[in-house]
Amino acid sequence: MNPPANERRANHPIDDRFLDRWSPRAFDTTPVSRDILDSLFEAARWAPSCFNEQPWLFLCAHEEPDLDLFRRLLRDSNRVWADRAPVLCYLFARMAFSRNGKPNRWAKFDCGAAWVSLALQARKLGLYAHAMAGFRRDDTYDELGVPAEDYEVICAIAIGYYGDPALLPPDVAAKEKPNDRKPMSSFVVYGRMNKPAGPACPTLIP
Amino acid sequence: MNPPANERRANHPIDDRFLDRWSPRAFDTTPVSRDILDSLFEAARWAPSCFNEQPWLFLCAHEEPDLDLFRRLLRDSNRVWADRAPVLCYLFARMAFSRNGKPNRWAKFDCGAAWVSLALQARKLGLYAHAMAGFRRDDTYDELGVPAEDYEVICAIAIGYYGDPALLPPDVAAKEKPNDRKPMSSFVVYGRMNKPAGPACPTLIP
Repeated sequence: MNPPANERRANHPIDDRFLDRWSPRAFDTTPVSRDILDSLFEAARWAPSCFNEQPWLFLCAHEEPDLDLFRRLLRDSNRVWADRAPVLCYLFARMAFSRNGKPNRWAKFDCGAAWVSLALQARKLGLYAHAMAGFRRDDTYDELGVPAEDYEVICAIAIGYYGDPALLPPDVAAKEKPNDRKPMSSFVVYGRMNKPAGPACPTLIP
Repeated sequence: MNPPANERRANHPIDDRFLDRWSPRAFDTTPVSRDILDSLFEAARWAPSCFNEQPWLFLCAHEEPDLDLFRRLLRDSNRVWADRAPVLCYLFARMAFSRNGKPNRWAKFDCGAAWVSLALQARKLGLYAHAMAGFRRDDTYDELGVPAEDYEVICAIAIGYYGDPALLPPDVAAKEKPNDRKPMSSFVVYGRMNKPAGPACPTLIP
């Protein structure tokens, strides 16, 4: 199936991939090969991280019974569409530096770099990746065997090819298009944010 | 100047940009045009985020006296090289959801996606971006006018074209090459991490 028309327009020239990456819900059940999964994780592997710690941990299911286990941790609001995805991952951040055991305040930040690298590589190969916050967070550690004292679970990720949006529940199908963004002026400030002597800046929180 | 030879090799096929993005210290003082900065922030703008919150805030200096202010917040270990960068940014995460004021546990994660989008777009345009953790964190809020009750500072970012590594202090020049990564097997697990009935898994923490 073809995804819906992408009406996103960049205000300044950027690589097409940034606009082309979005988070669909209509996944096809066609399996994703191990070769492709290797390429997705390879892209994540080269993400930058503080002190090159590489604090990311991806748990990946692409066959039964792993998929069943991974699905059952999702909230029903995600299961209605993500159950069709042929690949599900859970991304964890290792919250202390391995070199000295001290808390790593950049762990989640660095995991975000790895995640979007994976998502951009997915688009290059014709797939989509959709990160989800809705899952039984507290249960993921025991169910997936990941020590909660070392890791914090961040998100689930559905991965696959685009599917048939007609198979989505109507309320989910209604959301099935690339979303928009705030203007750049809402998140880029040149110089100091609130100039001490000048007039008050407009608040950046919309 | 040409950057040092990049000896990175991907173990699985990925977009060249992921290997080509690294964090040099030899920046050229050549200014970066506002058009290019717009493209870098445009790439960050399209990063994914939880509930499309877009929690990132970039403060950017590309001219005096802003550059001087931004430089003075850096640790000396970064100033020895980053003072030559023609652009410095500080990236902050807005730590609560704007729609309901509740804590956003994905704020830093989403900022990581925005940051690496910027860094990848920088490479597309022939520039480099280098994120830094070494700065006077507690002073950034007052000095840059960003409310600490709403935002958490994550990193400083130097941006510019590649410069002359001979201008770096010798100990800094010695580190001037793309770094490597752990093997994929250290951060990708298929299925449950510690299988309950099987033999103990090797620890993932090196």
